[in-house]
Amino acid sequence: MSDVAAGSRPDEAVRPEASRSRFARDTAVERIGDGRYRGRIDPGWAVFDGAAPNGGYVMALAARAMRDPLPHPDPVSLTAHFLRPPEPGPAEIDVEVVRTGRRHSTVSARVRQGESEQARLLGTFADLGAVTDEPDHRVDREPPRYPPVAGCLDVTGQAIAHHDAGGGAAPPILLRFDHRMPAELTGWVVGRPLGRSEVGGYVRWGDDTPMDTLGLLVVTDCYPPAVFNSGDTTVSWVPTIELTVQIRRRPGPGYLTTRFTTETVTAGGYLEEDGEVWDASGRLVALSRQLALAPR
Amino acid sequence: MSDVAAGSRPDEAVRPEASRSRFARDTAVERIGDGRYRGRIDPGWAVFDGAAPNGGYVMALAARAMRDPLPHPDPVSLTAHFLRPPEPGPAEIDVEVVRTGRRHSTVSARVRQGESEQARLLGTFADLGAVTDEPDHRVDREPPRYPPVAGCLDVTGQAIAHHDAGGGAAPPILLRFDHRMPAELTGWVVGRPLGRSEVGGYVRWGDDTPMDTLGLLVVTDCYPPAVFNSGDTTVSWVPTIELTVQIRRRPGPGYLTTRFTTETVTAGGYLEEDGEVWDASGRLVALSRQLALAPR
Repeated sequence: MSDVAAGSRPDEAVRPEASRSRFARDTAVERIGDGRYRGRIDPGWAVFDGAAPNGGYVMALAARAMRDPLPHPDPVSLTAHFLRPPEPGPAEIDVEVVRTGRRHSTVSARVRQGESEQARLLGTFADLGAVTDEPDHRVDREPPRYPPVAGCLDVTGQAIAHHDAGGGAAPPILLRFDHRMPAELTGWVVGRPLGRSEVGGYVRWGDDTPMDTLGLLVVTDCYPPAVFNSGDTTVSWVPTIELTVQIRRRPGPGYLTTRFTTETVTAGGYLEEDGEVWDASGRLVALSRQLALAPR
Repeated sequence: MSDVAAGSRPDEAVRPEASRSRFARDTAVERIGDGRYRGRIDPGWAVFDGAAPNGGYVMALAARAMRDPLPHPDPVSLTAHFLRPPEPGPAEIDVEVVRTGRRHSTVSARVRQGESEQARLLGTFADLGAVTDEPDHRVDREPPRYPPVAGCLDVTGQAIAHHDAGGGAAPPILLRFDHRMPAELTGWVVGRPLGRSEVGGYVRWGDDTPMDTLGLLVVTDCYPPAVFNSGDTTVSWVPTIELTVQIRRRPGPGYLTTRFTTETVTAGGYLEEDGEVWDASGRLVALSRQLALAPR
């Protein structure tokens, strides 16, 4: 598929279909009419073989179409409401530019497969390249203090080794990333949950291609639910109703540092999961919050 | 105007235009066609006379139209992107029901004045009456610990007294509420900012009518920007780009307890303001987050 944005993005100098970036290829879209784009849901972004792909991946696919008609390539606030699990295969994205201003553009989109709508999105985009050299004004929080990368579990590497030794298949989405996690944050996997709802670690693309602001959308939804580490819940499907991501900067090179927490699981099982993503130079690049439903 | 929801809502047993609730009257909408509603932007929800009305008020007006075609009266996640300041006077709300399911409905809307669009919204609604008697599952945060109501400043009463004594007019939106605030959180007003970006206190409607889940939308946007208390910024317009509110419960009677904080003001002046709202029985009723721009 042609890259509708080819050549115009500082973070994407190649055509996605020829890119060595798996993410760029799997979120490529083709303009097929006025406000209409065609893309493809790749099965390699699911939590297990046969499962629906990750919501953040669907969001990034839509965002690539949403930014195409704009002078503003970076989503500073993007919300997706997830309606139905998509199937692997072709998808269409219908884009409506709501308003284009000097500094910001607001855009709505829907992701469809045939007559069935899988996701509805609404976002405001800007050009964050314009603020790359501007310092932050005031940041009253710090990146999480994890052991250095070398002192963390190589979660992706272990999953591959487990599979190569005859174990089960690694979760497809795990293989899209290079995940390094502090051991204590993976306790739920081995039946020793942390006792508070937190996950996170270091992450970069598995193919070590540069991370852009569309990739950050996937990062904010690529971890197991933080609530699995509470010890209070079964490990089961936690459907996302809505995900909102604020992106503040284009990330620099190297591992991102992430933390995702849940503080409230209220009546009906409604929970928020709040995320923060920092780049390797210690700058905040994204904040996320989703509304999801706890396992019954 | 007729109340499109009259009689169907446990929290609104009267017709808004006849209600003693100023909020219900000022957010009443009339169905004028398929997915089309007419309402009115009242000037009494502005920060000062002649200013644009509060974004949360515009959101609540839209939400009243959005829920009309649904079996689900409560917004569990509602996002508004603010495009242009509305003018006092008639407004139309165009509502599109994206999906209606058993438990949730997803709806999009736009608020228009003539050909000019003021706000675009996207939200998921549920019936929170169904979970009123269900306890929360796990809440790892606590309401803010303020002095009791009697030990707080009667901010609304002081503004009225100041005006009656020949001082300037009180901010219209301040008069819609009965605000009680811990003195330390009002320091910015008298040139002694707190040194961290926090505001909050106790609040109920000024006419002491019951607070419903639409009213909570206004509550999440009715305080001065938390960043005014940082001491690092001028007290000037902080335009909201986007506001997302998660509503978890219908609030019980009495004062709500609120806290709003900003932790990051990043390059370009982008800041989040995170809010939490608890009811008088100590139950979390809403979480909010907005993306706004710091004063230059």
